Amino acid sequence: MVRNSLGRLVPEIFNNQARRPYCDPFSLQPTGQRASRTLRRVNPGFNKVLASLKDAIIASGLKDGMCISTHHHLRNGDMLLNMVVRVIDSLDIRDITIASTSIHPVHAELIPYIKSGTIRGFECGVNGLIGEMASKGEISCPIIVRTHGGRARAMSTGEVKVDVAFIAAPQCDRYGNMNGYYGPSACGSLGYAHLDAEYAHCVIAVTDNLHDYPVSPISIDQTQVDYVVQVEKLGDPSKIVSTTTRITKDPVGLMIAKYASEVIETAGLIKDGFSFQTGAGGTSLAVADNVRKKMLAAGVKGSFGSGGITSYFVDMLEQGLFDTLFDVQCFDLEAVKSIGRNMKHLEISADMYANPFNSGAVVNQLDAVILGATEVDVDFNVNVNTESNGYLLHNTGGHSDTAAGAKLSIITVPSIRGRLPIVRDAVTTITTPGETVDVIVTERGIAVNDQHPELKKELIKRKLPVKDIRQLQQEIVAMTGIPKPLEFEDDIVAVIEYRDGTIIDCVRRVKE
Amino acid sequence: MVRNSLGRLVPEIFNNQARRPYCDPFSLQPTGQRASRTLRRVNPGFNKVLASLKDAIIASGLKDGMCISTHHHLRNGDMLLNMVVRVIDSLDIRDITIASTSIHPVHAELIPYIKSGTIRGFECGVNGLIGEMASKGEISCPIIVRTHGGRARAMSTGEVKVDVAFIAAPQCDRYGNMNGYYGPSACGSLGYAHLDAEYAHCVIAVTDNLHDYPVSPISIDQTQVDYVVQVEKLGDPSKIVSTTTRITKDPVGLMIAKYASEVIETAGLIKDGFSFQTGAGGTSLAVADNVRKKMLAAGVKGSFGSGGITSYFVDMLEQGLFDTLFDVQCFDLEAVKSIGRNMKHLEISADMYANPFNSGAVVNQLDAVILGATEVDVDFNVNVNTESNGYLLHNTGGHSDTAAGAKLSIITVPSIRGRLPIVRDAVTTITTPGETVDVIVTERGIAVNDQHPELKKELIKRKLPVKDIRQLQQEIVAMTGIPKPLEFEDDIVAVIEYRDGTIIDCVRRVKE
Repeated sequence: MVRNSLGRLVPEIFNNQARRPYCDPFSLQPTGQRASRTLRRVNPGFNKVLASLKDAIIASGLKDGMCISTHHHLRNGDMLLNMVVRVIDSLDIRDITIASTSIHPVHAELIPYIKSGTIRGFECGVNGLIGEMASKGEISCPIIVRTHGGRARAMSTGEVKVDVAFIAAPQCDRYGNMNGYYGPSACGSLGYAHLDAEYAHCVIAVTDNLHDYPVSPISIDQTQVDYVVQVEKLGDPSKIVSTTTRITKDPVGLMIAKYASEVIETAGLIKDGFSFQTGAGGTSLAVADNVRKKMLAAGVKGSFGSGGITSYFVDMLEQGLFDTLFDVQCFDLEAVKSIGRNMKHLEISADMYANPFNSGAVVNQLDAVILGATEVDVDFNVNVNTESNGYLLHNTGGHSDTAAGAKLSIITVPSIRGRLPIVRDAVTTITTPGETVDVIVTERGIAVNDQHPELKKELIKRKLPVKDIRQLQQEIVAMTGIPKPLEFEDDIVAVIEYRDGTIIDCVRRVKE
Repeated sequence: MVRNSLGRLVPEIFNNQARRPYCDPFSLQPTGQRASRTLRRVNPGFNKVLASLKDAIIASGLKDGMCISTHHHLRNGDMLLNMVVRVIDSLDIRDITIASTSIHPVHAELIPYIKSGTIRGFECGVNGLIGEMASKGEISCPIIVRTHGGRARAMSTGEVKVDVAFIAAPQCDRYGNMNGYYGPSACGSLGYAHLDAEYAHCVIAVTDNLHDYPVSPISIDQTQVDYVVQVEKLGDPSKIVSTTTRITKDPVGLMIAKYASEVIETAGLIKDGFSFQTGAGGTSLAVADNVRKKMLAAGVKGSFGSGGITSYFVDMLEQGLFDTLFDVQCFDLEAVKSIGRNMKHLEISADMYANPFNSGAVVNQLDAVILGATEVDVDFNVNVNTESNGYLLHNTGGHSDTAAGAKLSIITVPSIRGRLPIVRDAVTTITTPGETVDVIVTERGIAVNDQHPELKKELIKRKLPVKDIRQLQQEIVAMTGIPKPLEFEDDIVAVIEYRDGTIIDCVRRVKE
């Protein structure tokens, strides 16, 4: 074990691989070449379409101890990963590592396969029950949590080697050209899966919508796809994209959103060329709505909106408030429709979105990003992975990537959740380092990182409730009391990789 | 020297590299991994825009003996390659290899730099004076002629390593996102340059149209571009794309076109899902026009048109005769306009177009392709590189790639050119092997390769002028006489690579 620059004790070896401790957000330089696939040759007349997932898995050469992946664009409606693991199990292949782009609660169905040894671990973060059970010591499977940009990095450096990628393809032709725009399982952008298509040793397109050649537009093309398999259903359309993302009506959320949009305005960012990212939560959407109004009032034409795209951003594109949307993932059905019809609504890969090890990701061009937290601390560190009960319940997503890239990263968070104070002395788990977090906005006050004295001064001038982070913490704790500290065992359940691949923290088994 | 399977004596070493003799079109299997670029990191705030080409060349680290590339989408209007070489010369860098996607007559300006040793050779074919002078022994520079798919292959295997790629970008932002659709030097698709962006050690975008971030749509993106340079002018718009491509009015050409379209019809290909490629010559366009009429008459909906795209194919897309256009290169201004507005008009890379060493190129899905020739021979071999004077004057383009991929490859060629017979005992230079050529159509008769006895029978049944290739040759020679055989020195001016990288022929110095 070694202490990283944030004071966290992290392992030097985890899951039999050497790990480096986190040092700082920007200085680690990559060495060597990008990874690449084996050269192959496909002559005219070759038939890529196989009769079943089983046939495709056999054709892929998947064996004990190998690594597979799927993407999470179908979100909690995904049926493919569970389907694949059932077939793998039926073929008596064991010890498989899953390096999907994310795991959702629907994949709790994998738990028996973890227990039986079909699945040995996760080269990806896990949302929901798997993380909870691992945190309790009820299942044993090493978990390596990565940011979206960090996963792209790990694929591109060859640190994660996917043997067989199963790509859910909502529209696909017999030669493997695909997009996510049309069909019963339409999910929009396939941005996270581009990396799998580029780097996996074998790429299997799985579709419930086999279309005449050629599918167009094309998100992932025939030159990268080895086999095509038809299944009855890729996903549950009602859960593929959330259609319940609406602006919050909660007064606390609305207050936070008001403050956050005023911070953006005060920072002088709402001007021509403004670029912006926010998530799909009710408060985030309220910020987007406020920002939209401010842009309209000021007659500002922004440059781009990025990230998980919602109908709010689609509206802003269509109103001319953005020139372009960079879409790594669609969060709602309006976004899915838009990406299938608008040439200014661009699908981008996770590499282009957020990989720190290329010639410049989209996050580097962001003016402002609105992010959430389960906890923050007085050093501005942010936790999004574990809850205050210590359980690993959430993936990092693009949190650390956008925080590092954007000129202004704003954490919006209620000061109290479930009677617990959200501003801590030290977060349970560090996901995103405080040096990349600029402002924390709660309904009780706004804390500005010391690296922005001018912004702080200007916010005070505008009579916004700026508070020192410790003062804010004390006000909150005065109401909630100091929560009983969590107790942990020594066993490490998961490591939290920073986007550059260093270990920023780890998650330990919770003492019951 | 070694004799390849077509009986041509080819070198085992050329330009200090080992070469393999051609064997057959499909069996050579690649080994190893795809090439890849060095990993790099670009943090927020990095400025890619440099003040001049000179600054960019210095920043790129270009040194004596290295290799550079440009693309040929600006065709004979390109100003960039000459500009780059002038700056390289001014920096006293010598012994540079040019691995551009093609060289055009406008690049005759490079001849003094070849003579002075600034340029040492070409990892690409050359159109025009450079090839002629090399053929006469007036300049000395090894030339390796590749097909479009062969260049993609050589880049992807690492056989050609480009140190610095200069990519002419008709619309480009400060972070290197670019397309060729808009601006004073708009050329449409940048399909050939995708490979350079992916594999070159350093990528410099050069633009005469620096646009606010972000350019969208994006053909080549910021993650691959290291520097951006603004110049006054990338090209001469009147020569960037040819606007003079019209259907031939020559009765010989019209007769050939009529026969060729009847061959396609007779082969049973004009049905739903039909896919088609043809070039921009007057006869090719006449074939396209005939095919269009036949499709309309039969109520057929095709799948895709591919290749260099002309207004004829744009019309067919807009009329619903094709579902999709796969555009590696725009041949006229209507194609440029279309690719900038129509989501079914897709830009594809040379890799996707024609690389034999990936999971399946577009050429593999072609039903019919119409191709030209400078000569053909009684074994159906085709020459497009040298003229009957023996001078290397033309690049291969996608000739051998589409011939190998398409179900039906048709060579359309007048029987006599400049009083010389076009059907020979043996072509001067083999570009495309006869085993991938299905039908040769002249105004005097149609020769069908023996591998298609059914098609031959059916054509005869339809009373088309089918002739044995030797009979056709004799009829032609009866009028022209037998031309005096060319005489060559032993020195090899250029090797002609087949698409798989083997040497199918070489070009020798012409005896004066």
